[in-house]
Amino acid sequence: MRMVDIIYKKREGYELTRDELRFVVEGYTKDQIPDYQVASLLMAIYFKDLSNKEIFYLTEAMMMSGDVIDLSDIDGIKVDKHSTGGVGDTTTLIVGPLVAACGVPVAKMSGRGLGHTGGTIDKLESIRGFQVEMSDKRFIDIVNRVKLSVIGQSADLAPADKKLYALRDVTATVDNIGLIASSIMSKKLAAGTDAILLDVKIGSGAFMKNEEQGLILAQQMVDIGEQAKKNTVAILTDMNQPLGNAVGNSLEVKEAIQTLKNEGPQDLKQLCVYLASNMVLLAEKAKNIEEALEMVNDKLVSGKAFEKFKEFIAAQGGDLSVIDDPSLLPEAKYIYSVKAKADGYIETIKADEIGLAALILGAGRESKHSVIDLSAGLILHGRIGDKILENQPIATLYTNMDMKLEQASSIVNGAFCFSKEQVQLPKLIKAIVSSQGIKNM
Amino acid sequence: MRMVDIIYKKREGYELTRDELRFVVEGYTKDQIPDYQVASLLMAIYFKDLSNKEIFYLTEAMMMSGDVIDLSDIDGIKVDKHSTGGVGDTTTLIVGPLVAACGVPVAKMSGRGLGHTGGTIDKLESIRGFQVEMSDKRFIDIVNRVKLSVIGQSADLAPADKKLYALRDVTATVDNIGLIASSIMSKKLAAGTDAILLDVKIGSGAFMKNEEQGLILAQQMVDIGEQAKKNTVAILTDMNQPLGNAVGNSLEVKEAIQTLKNEGPQDLKQLCVYLASNMVLLAEKAKNIEEALEMVNDKLVSGKAFEKFKEFIAAQGGDLSVIDDPSLLPEAKYIYSVKAKADGYIETIKADEIGLAALILGAGRESKHSVIDLSAGLILHGRIGDKILENQPIATLYTNMDMKLEQASSIVNGAFCFSKEQVQLPKLIKAIVSSQGIKNM
Repeated sequence: MRMVDIIYKKREGYELTRDELRFVVEGYTKDQIPDYQVASLLMAIYFKDLSNKEIFYLTEAMMMSGDVIDLSDIDGIKVDKHSTGGVGDTTTLIVGPLVAACGVPVAKMSGRGLGHTGGTIDKLESIRGFQVEMSDKRFIDIVNRVKLSVIGQSADLAPADKKLYALRDVTATVDNIGLIASSIMSKKLAAGTDAILLDVKIGSGAFMKNEEQGLILAQQMVDIGEQAKKNTVAILTDMNQPLGNAVGNSLEVKEAIQTLKNEGPQDLKQLCVYLASNMVLLAEKAKNIEEALEMVNDKLVSGKAFEKFKEFIAAQGGDLSVIDDPSLLPEAKYIYSVKAKADGYIETIKADEIGLAALILGAGRESKHSVIDLSAGLILHGRIGDKILENQPIATLYTNMDMKLEQASSIVNGAFCFSKEQVQLPKLIKAIVSSQGIKNM
Repeated sequence: MRMVDIIYKKREGYELTRDELRFVVEGYTKDQIPDYQVASLLMAIYFKDLSNKEIFYLTEAMMMSGDVIDLSDIDGIKVDKHSTGGVGDTTTLIVGPLVAACGVPVAKMSGRGLGHTGGTIDKLESIRGFQVEMSDKRFIDIVNRVKLSVIGQSADLAPADKKLYALRDVTATVDNIGLIASSIMSKKLAAGTDAILLDVKIGSGAFMKNEEQGLILAQQMVDIGEQAKKNTVAILTDMNQPLGNAVGNSLEVKEAIQTLKNEGPQDLKQLCVYLASNMVLLAEKAKNIEEALEMVNDKLVSGKAFEKFKEFIAAQGGDLSVIDDPSLLPEAKYIYSVKAKADGYIETIKADEIGLAALILGAGRESKHSVIDLSAGLILHGRIGDKILENQPIATLYTNMDMKLEQASSIVNGAFCFSKEQVQLPKLIKAIVSSQGIKNM
């Protein structure tokens, strides 16, 4: 097999075989195929697209390029949740306890990641004493006992995807839906759960800017899941404004605690309950979505989910007094109020700009070696549709670097778009895609 | 300027600027831009094509990447000829003396090249004593005195093209007409002549398989020439069978001598006279093509072109007794006759297969380090349209490696396609393309 023939074949629009895609992925992972040939193939794929079969074969080959986790020592149906990424996405911290409280095992390996805020691991580390490194045995014990554990990813999941993604990033071949679908699913399949729930974000702050593209991505990921014999459901949700009000590590932990006490922002609560209910359904703990929603709502309202959260934090060494008194979480030295420059109804809040402001304030990592400021970030004081008056506060910034306030403030101001007219509220949950098809909400 | 933005821009179909293309070519030549980004850009170019402007800017940047020859010490209008490559293409050895005999200076730098036979330099070296290495001063002196000199290429012409071509070869991005046009023209522009004549080969043995593609390539090259302010003309010629009968180094020299004595194959003579006449016209030594054709024909028939050839060979140290008695040229130890396997009219002679047979017999280079057998090659005994009987010889093979005869013989047999019906003869000269447009012949 010659790589140049594979490139030519794809360029001419023919379907690549399972063996050919495995040859490419294995060869590239082992440095036997040079990156210039892979770059050329990626651009040909960009123009000619991958068929559903090709997407599955590519995903499978990437999954097989590294460790595939074995979770068989955990009792019950394991369900993983993945979000395609947005801003202020605190859902894991809330959904985990909701689902675990329903008896569904949640065994989460999480990364630190680059971006405007840290990953779930970073957020949890803002709780004094919380341990993210432990043996596999202890991890599995906690899941079996508490039904919920989150650890730092030690396994080498889908290294081919990591290498391919880095190459796509510098060769203008990121935005192909087939490549995105296989990248996400290769890691999810390697993570070893029985079922997968996908939260596909749509809107200005998300990778998928419109619903049409989001639906295609969702369908392709569900299709990969089905081919891999893992029950997979994708939910399309709105990202035309950040989810919830908090963006930042300890700020999001505070918001998660509020939400688990049923005192959080309405949109964050609504999404978390819906995602959790679908996970409960995938785990076969409910007969239908109505029953699942009732079960999850009950865990929230009764405080059982919050109890589960505390149980989980304690099991991993976290200091529960921080949960009881969130003012003990890391707090920033400088707090600054951003005020509206004119009157109007909020039309959109560009979530990517809000994320950028949080990054500038210190909440995220620009490179692998950046140190995160766990206390930094911002709280929004308006949602789409709200009427705002000139000089009314629209956000509060938190940072330990006061010289960053001016730049961040100006970015936040630019992220808010106002309208003179009243604005229609965006639908938070837009559609659900499963092997049964698409259901618009 | 960031390379990833340039790739993205091209991928989206926008026109790249002169600065952007220069940035790419300079950066790549200096190893500042990695080959994976260039590979990705090349594939985007394959799908989105280059505009005429972009082709010119790319050509210009590649030309500027190395030496640009200064021929101003040579009197008169210098005209270069370039063939897009075929099999048995002995034209330079014949056209040079024809043109020089008309008083047009021919200053040819020639490479050795890879392929089924050697380059012009290799062919000339089959003449005892012939020198291809000399000082620039002596080269220019010979051109001014004799009007014809051929030397080995010492300058570093368009190194960016060399590097890009090598990358295209392994990334399935060779066959884009804009990239082909700029590759050829970057070297021609760097060679420093005042005008350029292009022989664009069309047919089974050429890179351009059909006339439509050939016309586009011709137009694009003429357009580049015009933008570079160099009078440029392209002639589309047939390569559905090898040109002339000889393929191989000393065999082609013998055929060139025959042709200059007006005893050569009809097609080779016709093409050489036509190409030479167009060069005479480009050099402004004739008022129109009719006058140029008459002038060139006269030089051939009168023996003046043959005299000019001898003068040129002598000026570069070649042994004239070899020219007077071509049997003194290197001769192969093994001579083998290939016989037709059935009756029929010759329909095509796959020139690329004939070239491959010559390569196997030892006439060419498979890699830079291969040693050429100057005596190896083959002579064809039929042209398209000829009626051949079973067991009639269709080719004679020449080699010093008798173990190669069987393989070469079988390839030659496969290269001949026969028809039961009479066959229409292909038109040798199909069209001429200049800044005035296309003229079909």
